[in-house]
Amino acid sequence: MMRLQVPGYALLSQADTLQYSFSGTGVNVTAALSRFGYPSYLVSTLPANPVGDAAIANLQKLGIDCTFIQRNGKYIGMYFLENGFGVRASRVTYSNRLESSFNTASLYDFQEIAKQIDVAHFCGITLAMNDTVRQQMKQFATAVKAHGGTVVFDCNYRPTLWGEDGYDKARSHYEEMLHLADIVLMNEKDAMLTLQMTTEETERTAQLQALLPFVAQKYNITVIAGTHRTVNHDNTHSLQGFLWKNQRLTFSDQRTFSVHDRIGAGDAYTSGVIHGELQGFSPKETVDFAVAASMLAHTIVGDTPMSSEQDIRQVMTQTIHDVIR
Amino acid sequence: MMRLQVPGYALLSQADTLQYSFSGTGVNVTAALSRFGYPSYLVSTLPANPVGDAAIANLQKLGIDCTFIQRNGKYIGMYFLENGFGVRASRVTYSNRLESSFNTASLYDFQEIAKQIDVAHFCGITLAMNDTVRQQMKQFATAVKAHGGTVVFDCNYRPTLWGEDGYDKARSHYEEMLHLADIVLMNEKDAMLTLQMTTEETERTAQLQALLPFVAQKYNITVIAGTHRTVNHDNTHSLQGFLWKNQRLTFSDQRTFSVHDRIGAGDAYTSGVIHGELQGFSPKETVDFAVAASMLAHTIVGDTPMSSEQDIRQVMTQTIHDVIR
Amino acid sequence: MMRLQVPGYALLSQADTLQYSFSGTGVNVTAALSRFGYPSYLVSTLPANPVGDAAIANLQKLGIDCTFIQRNGKYIGMYFLENGFGVRASRVTYSNRLESSFNTASLYDFQEIAKQIDVAHFCGITLAMNDTVRQQMKQFATAVKAHGGTVVFDCNYRPTLWGEDGYDKARSHYEEMLHLADIVLMNEKDAMLTLQMTTEETERTAQLQALLPFVAQKYNITVIAGTHRTVNHDNTHSLQGFLWKNQRLTFSDQRTFSVHDRIGAGDAYTSGVIHGELQGFSPKETVDFAVAASMLAHTIVGDTPMSSEQDIRQVMTQTIHDVIR
Amino acid sequence: MMRLQVPGYALLSQADTLQYSFSGTGVNVTAALSRFGYPSYLVSTLPANPVGDAAIANLQKLGIDCTFIQRNGKYIGMYFLENGFGVRASRVTYSNRLESSFNTASLYDFQEIAKQIDVAHFCGITLAMNDTVRQQMKQFATAVKAHGGTVVFDCNYRPTLWGEDGYDKARSHYEEMLHLADIVLMNEKDAMLTLQMTTEETERTAQLQALLPFVAQKYNITVIAGTHRTVNHDNTHSLQGFLWKNQRLTFSDQRTFSVHDRIGAGDAYTSGVIHGELQGFSPKETVDFAVAASMLAHTIVGDTPMSSEQDIRQVMTQTIHDVIR
Amino acid sequence: MMRLQVPGYALLSQADTLQYSFSGTGVNVTAALSRFGYPSYLVSTLPANPVGDAAIANLQKLGIDCTFIQRNGKYIGMYFLENGFGVRASRVTYSNRLESSFNTASLYDFQEIAKQIDVAHFCGITLAMNDTVRQQMKQFATAVKAHGGTVVFDCNYRPTLWGEDGYDKARSHYEEMLHLADIVLMNEKDAMLTLQMTTEETERTAQLQALLPFVAQKYNITVIAGTHRTVNHDNTHSLQGFLWKNQRLTFSDQRTFSVHDRIGAGDAYTSGVIHGELQGFSPKETVDFAVAASMLAHTIVGDTPMSSEQDIRQVMTQTIHDVIR
Amino acid sequence: MMRLQVPGYALLSQADTLQYSFSGTGVNVTAALSRFGYPSYLVSTLPANPVGDAAIANLQKLGIDCTFIQRNGKYIGMYFLENGFGVRASRVTYSNRLESSFNTASLYDFQEIAKQIDVAHFCGITLAMNDTVRQQMKQFATAVKAHGGTVVFDCNYRPTLWGEDGYDKARSHYEEMLHLADIVLMNEKDAMLTLQMTTEETERTAQLQALLPFVAQKYNITVIAGTHRTVNHDNTHSLQGFLWKNQRLTFSDQRTFSVHDRIGAGDAYTSGVIHGELQGFSPKETVDFAVAASMLAHTIVGDTPMSSEQDIRQVMTQTIHDVIR
Repeated sequence: MMRLQVPGYALLSQADTLQYSFSGTGVNVTAALSRFGYPSYLVSTLPANPVGDAAIANLQKLGIDCTFIQRNGKYIGMYFLENGFGVRASRVTYSNRLESSFNTASLYDFQEIAKQIDVAHFCGITLAMNDTVRQQMKQFATAVKAHGGTVVFDCNYRPTLWGEDGYDKARSHYEEMLHLADIVLMNEKDAMLTLQMTTEETERTAQLQALLPFVAQKYNITVIAGTHRTVNHDNTHSLQGFLWKNQRLTFSDQRTFSVHDRIGAGDAYTSGVIHGELQGFSPKETVDFAVAASMLAHTIVGDTPMSSEQDIRQVMTQTIHDVIR
Repeated sequence: MMRLQVPGYALLSQADTLQYSFSGTGVNVTAALSRFGYPSYLVSTLPANPVGDAAIANLQKLGIDCTFIQRNGKYIGMYFLENGFGVRASRVTYSNRLESSFNTASLYDFQEIAKQIDVAHFCGITLAMNDTVRQQMKQFATAVKAHGGTVVFDCNYRPTLWGEDGYDKARSHYEEMLHLADIVLMNEKDAMLTLQMTTEETERTAQLQALLPFVAQKYNITVIAGTHRTVNHDNTHSLQGFLWKNQRLTFSDQRTFSVHDRIGAGDAYTSGVIHGELQGFSPKETVDFAVAASMLAHTIVGDTPMSSEQDIRQVMTQTIHDVIR
Repeated sequence: MMRLQVPGYALLSQADTLQYSFSGTGVNVTAALSRFGYPSYLVSTLPANPVGDAAIANLQKLGIDCTFIQRNGKYIGMYFLENGFGVRASRVTYSNRLESSFNTASLYDFQEIAKQIDVAHFCGITLAMNDTVRQQMKQFATAVKAHGGTVVFDCNYRPTLWGEDGYDKARSHYEEMLHLADIVLMNEKDAMLTLQMTTEETERTAQLQALLPFVAQKYNITVIAGTHRTVNHDNTHSLQGFLWKNQRLTFSDQRTFSVHDRIGAGDAYTSGVIHGELQGFSPKETVDFAVAASMLAHTIVGDTPMSSEQDIRQVMTQTIHDVIR
Repeated sequence: MMRLQVPGYALLSQADTLQYSFSGTGVNVTAALSRFGYPSYLVSTLPANPVGDAAIANLQKLGIDCTFIQRNGKYIGMYFLENGFGVRASRVTYSNRLESSFNTASLYDFQEIAKQIDVAHFCGITLAMNDTVRQQMKQFATAVKAHGGTVVFDCNYRPTLWGEDGYDKARSHYEEMLHLADIVLMNEKDAMLTLQMTTEETERTAQLQALLPFVAQKYNITVIAGTHRTVNHDNTHSLQGFLWKNQRLTFSDQRTFSVHDRIGAGDAYTSGVIHGELQGFSPKETVDFAVAASMLAHTIVGDTPMSSEQDIRQVMTQTIHDVIR
Repeated sequence: MMRLQVPGYALLSQADTLQYSFSGTGVNVTAALSRFGYPSYLVSTLPANPVGDAAIANLQKLGIDCTFIQRNGKYIGMYFLENGFGVRASRVTYSNRLESSFNTASLYDFQEIAKQIDVAHFCGITLAMNDTVRQQMKQFATAVKAHGGTVVFDCNYRPTLWGEDGYDKARSHYEEMLHLADIVLMNEKDAMLTLQMTTEETERTAQLQALLPFVAQKYNITVIAGTHRTVNHDNTHSLQGFLWKNQRLTFSDQRTFSVHDRIGAGDAYTSGVIHGELQGFSPKETVDFAVAASMLAHTIVGDTPMSSEQDIRQVMTQTIHDVIR
Repeated sequence: MMRLQVPGYALLSQADTLQYSFSGTGVNVTAALSRFGYPSYLVSTLPANPVGDAAIANLQKLGIDCTFIQRNGKYIGMYFLENGFGVRASRVTYSNRLESSFNTASLYDFQEIAKQIDVAHFCGITLAMNDTVRQQMKQFATAVKAHGGTVVFDCNYRPTLWGEDGYDKARSHYEEMLHLADIVLMNEKDAMLTLQMTTEETERTAQLQALLPFVAQKYNITVIAGTHRTVNHDNTHSLQGFLWKNQRLTFSDQRTFSVHDRIGAGDAYTSGVIHGELQGFSPKETVDFAVAASMLAHTIVGDTPMSSEQDIRQVMTQTIHDVIR
């Protein structure tokens, strides 16, 4: 997607310039993994016009290999971002993406792509698009599994995209993806609302403890991970990561930090979990690394994480540096 | 529409900021007339969100009365503009406007609006949108005529909007509008291509001479006006206006001038013709004024003309001033 | 007035660009009320030159009806703003406004204007200008009363404008305005310093309790409202509103919040009080609404409040949102 | 003065930022001479506030010694500049400078200053301010003469500053300054309009030939110099310099060149004439150098010339360089 | 190299911001070929720090494959660019590149690289660096030849890099490279000054005719190409390309055009010649294409050509388009 | 040095513009003292090219007298600054300064300079450059002493500049400078690491108490001063100053404050100490003044302190002002 951000803290009705960049969950996770040293591909379709050219150039700048990107159609999804300040929340306004190149894309050669990759990442936002896109997602995930690859699925439920009775509409599609997935990003609300699981617990950590074992067992998922976020009153957020694996739920330390650009920070967490799993980190190291990656992403301009493993390990120590010369 | 312009002469794939403004033929003509001292209304529909708020604020800034603007729907038409330089032409890339608030608007109270206005301006770009919009245009124009108002119609044919066999698709709609119109902006190509009129003349001035009388008579049009433009090799354009009225074709002097922002300069010409007619200028004064208005609009940042009658009369004299202190 | 602000946190002697906007207490209150849905007029005089044109365009952008603005004279009041940061306070430097269009304006048709409006807002800064302006203020307020309108007066005493022995110079003019006013913005210091009232209380809340009844009774004022502000050490302010009405003093909750642009936030409070009174809010709802309006105005770029009633009600709940999508 | 320029080619009513710099004839000539290697002082008064601080910082940046600048008063003269483009002329709007620090300055120690300098430059714009300023100018010029220094006077008549019957009001003051001056910048119009001299010639070069000998003789002036400018239709100007000395009128080659920023280019010419005289150039070398200096100043951002003698000599050759590496 | 450009037409001593990009002859040619659809690699060394990261990101953005770029050392070559205007030439100031990562690079695996590429481009600027770099160039060119690849050499002699007696110092190195080269970019001056060839002709076209056959024969070169440039007085340049092949010298049409950013436009010409040769264009088509590519590159922001083959073919027709919608 | 700063919080690989300024310990201290009213000279060498011109212009803008600056060589030291945010530290990347004009400067006329100044400031960063520079420093300090001036030396040890075994390499040079110095800026770490002094204390304040008397005695130093800094987790720093004089160690109050631009704030402390000593402040007043100067410098854009004595005294009171009008 194309992000059109009002600079500073002005509103759209006050400013006259926008900063643009190209992002989206897939872009963010792919670019973050590229920074960790993995060759990273985006599978998508972009318009065959100057806007698509700009998207390609900027994805390449982020280190993403664009070999599997098709050029077709005329439109790209866009959103306007007005930065919040303190008590005034940030505000996102979407443009029309029903007829975007991505949503009207012809079939990709998923078998061929699946042969060349080890891990594929999918997300619930894409699942909300339309039937064609949903079908493509499932075909691709099936192909990846068939070739021995790992399927990552981020539940990422967006109420406004699914509309009225959204959970009911979404449920079967989520379940199909969960059956295909090895690593899943979700929390207790996804289990309760999308998957209609129930627990008598009322506190979110207890709900996690109660529900994740069932989710993992029912859909045969190896790793389930996610975060609990608290928005504080002084421009800081608090974040704690969790990871279910081998019948155990591991929590990261809770980190509190000043926030510069919150969007995309969840994707940095995802990239940290994938890296931990690929590198065989312990669950504790994985959640601590993923939370540090996410924390750093809140201090980075734009949606897309930009930190190297070294950068992230530096802030895992909890000491704040003066100036790095 | 929302114009998203790359600053300076960079391409979309080189820059990272955009300047935005709100324009369109209707906006440009309305704002230009507002500068001549007329209360000027825009009849349109804008989304009920921050983008719509920004549009309203900027239309008000241009002096446009927004009383007749409905707030509905979610999207606004957008286009990206990359400025050309010398031999490299400017490039416009449209976003999807099929589902814009304007194109999905519910019915306006045209009878009520028609009562309050003297002149209504319509344009061929709007006519290309969809059947609902076309129906609304014709209802509005009919209501204006019924209340004794003047209908202005700018033929403004855009091939990419009508698609294949566009002239055939467009013809009957154009003819309906021409039958309702009192003042028409067009040139010899509109007569030949859209209206399928023929002449043996091959030079454009001769074609005008041959065809305009037939057009005026057939559709019962009081004034037909337009321009002939030449793009020169040194960043200048040459422009000559013409105006058919009372069985006579009058030409302006040809003006040659450096071009800063070409888009919307045709709408300045239209506003000059309307002003001349409303004020009872002679045909010669009207075309000279309209061409000077258009010429000045080429030197103004943005699509929308910003010049007062005094500014325009100053450049009608052909002398170039040093600095106005 | 024209605000010329150094971008970011640089000093005038460090930067080379300025951001300009047009504001002032009257502009801010009028624009804020326009956002609440009231047709809002500014009664003023602006120069008949490009600076005046820019002012008109920007006032219209803010939703202000400029019908009652006269165009005369050559100058507009201006001020330079250097943003403070943390322990370094913001700094305002005024240009010469003695000969501004506003201060040298000819007589307005106040009878005609008074007929068309329900509420008129005046402020103590204007009262400090010169005798002609003071006379105009009183004539206008008298006309509004005569036509059954409501007079709002914001005491807003600026020491540098009145000069030496300022309170003595100002007293009789303030008293005249207070006799005409229905709603007054002031605090205990205005009562003690400008009106020379005395109390033995030493704490500001107790002083309010002691003095406001006398002020209300003496000048026959329906509503007296104001705020108590505390500047904290961590870039936050604390704000509590109060409102005297029907013999009772009501306080809002105290709100603490990060500050982005402090100037004009008092005018947002005024607009909240006016809106509460016009809509018949309870005193408690009015002060809570007005404080929330003011709090939001601290997070908005520029002097002028930009929030709708819906925006303000959202922050009255004290929960901080993550991102509004 | 403080120049507040709208960036690019936008109007004040379109933009929201201004670029500021500090200039004026005195500043421009002084800074230009500083670039030629002369210690250069400005004799002026600036406000004792952040605007004055910014002025001092920027004058120092230009290489001007600020030892003789007093800090008093509160205001500085300002002007807004909207850049023209092609047929649309640049537009200057002045703020109120009646009460500027300069115009309300207390007496300078002109005897002391006159001791330390060799050449003093005065200009007709200053002469138009008020009686106090005029008196100061004459006192200073007299002191310079008394200490053996050279007095340069630029006639620089601005009609809007002198108002109705301006030439009559100005005449005696100009004559006083001319009697004190050694080097004078003027043209045939100054002789005819301000000094009421007459000639039967109608072409401007012939008028120069006819009038300058009388002017030089009557006021006992050593050197009279000036330019004839033609504004062409393609964003270029043509400039020819002239210089009367030792009973001979010498002309420079006429130069035609693209114009980026025209304001202040006349002051570059003045600085070239002063440099030529101080260095003992031949009259032909002086006018050619001064015209080249002026021509370069048209290509420089801002009012103030920035070119070294080497830069100027490079363009005296009439060859255009590709890139200087 | 890192280009640090003062925005607009200001001097380094006037501005306070710089626009940066990464370019150089190799970057420009590689990126241009990438736009024509060729996989394009840069062989270089960049510092292992944030400046090197930024370079990599921007090279990827240009479509360059960075697989063969080593990360070592601490510095990158930089240059400051002040844009000229009209008679004032652009000015380039280099930073110290003696100790740049490129100039202190360890050995590349040229055999491996040579296996994977078809064409390698070298330039005379690199040849001027130091002995290590020169040795690397020759090793690489030799390896390319050994693996059947094509060697392109652009003579590109920069006097300031070679210093005193530069042609004598450079001669043997140039001759070595010419012996290895298949396609050479040069003109008559390279033949006369660097290669010490002589002719009695005095006009540059005649000199070309006289000298190129000898050069081609002596060094066994298949194609020799270059341009003749004229800098005109109105911000335009004129350019004519030539190409020697199969014993015939072919000239392009001379094109005259407005210039926005001249640097790097020669590299666009080179890319056009390489593309013509690889695609088997006729010599006439190749020079016309290469000149059109170069002409367009003068209208593009930055050093690096950004045009597709379609863009270039559009301007080969000599018609100027109004707006491309 | 030339500081090239990425605007806002972006990384070098995300942005495309840089803000430049000229700073360095010497520049910062000199400019700060100039703001306190002292004529202040920089003794340095700058390149004789446009970069050097820009440096001179900007030093003059800061109020520094450039009489003693030589123009020679071609390069200036540069560094890139990426601003940190919250947990992400700021990052500095140096360009190559081995061959800078400063490091390759020819001999200055130190005897002559020493005659004209009262105080000379030296710093440990300069001491790390090379043998020539070190020799010049010592010659200059010796000359200052010989002419009865005061020598200030800031220990300022930068590990990356001295490389491996840096303390051993640096020791003798530091000792030479300390023997020449009257006022020294240092802390307990300099004593322990550079001077190899030992103490059994483990807390930094106790270490100071233990070591400073020995340092002062051994090198015969009148005043030793420094700060202890704590970086907090909420974008604030805490700072406490200390000053050893007349056998007593005096501490300032500890101040905690929000940080905008941390670089150069230590130099503001130095300037405060020098000012206190020159004005005969008590030790307590000096440290409180110096810490307030440093605190304000953290809120100022750029490396260089910009505050007057009045500004600093305003924040010594610990009250935070709302807006200064």
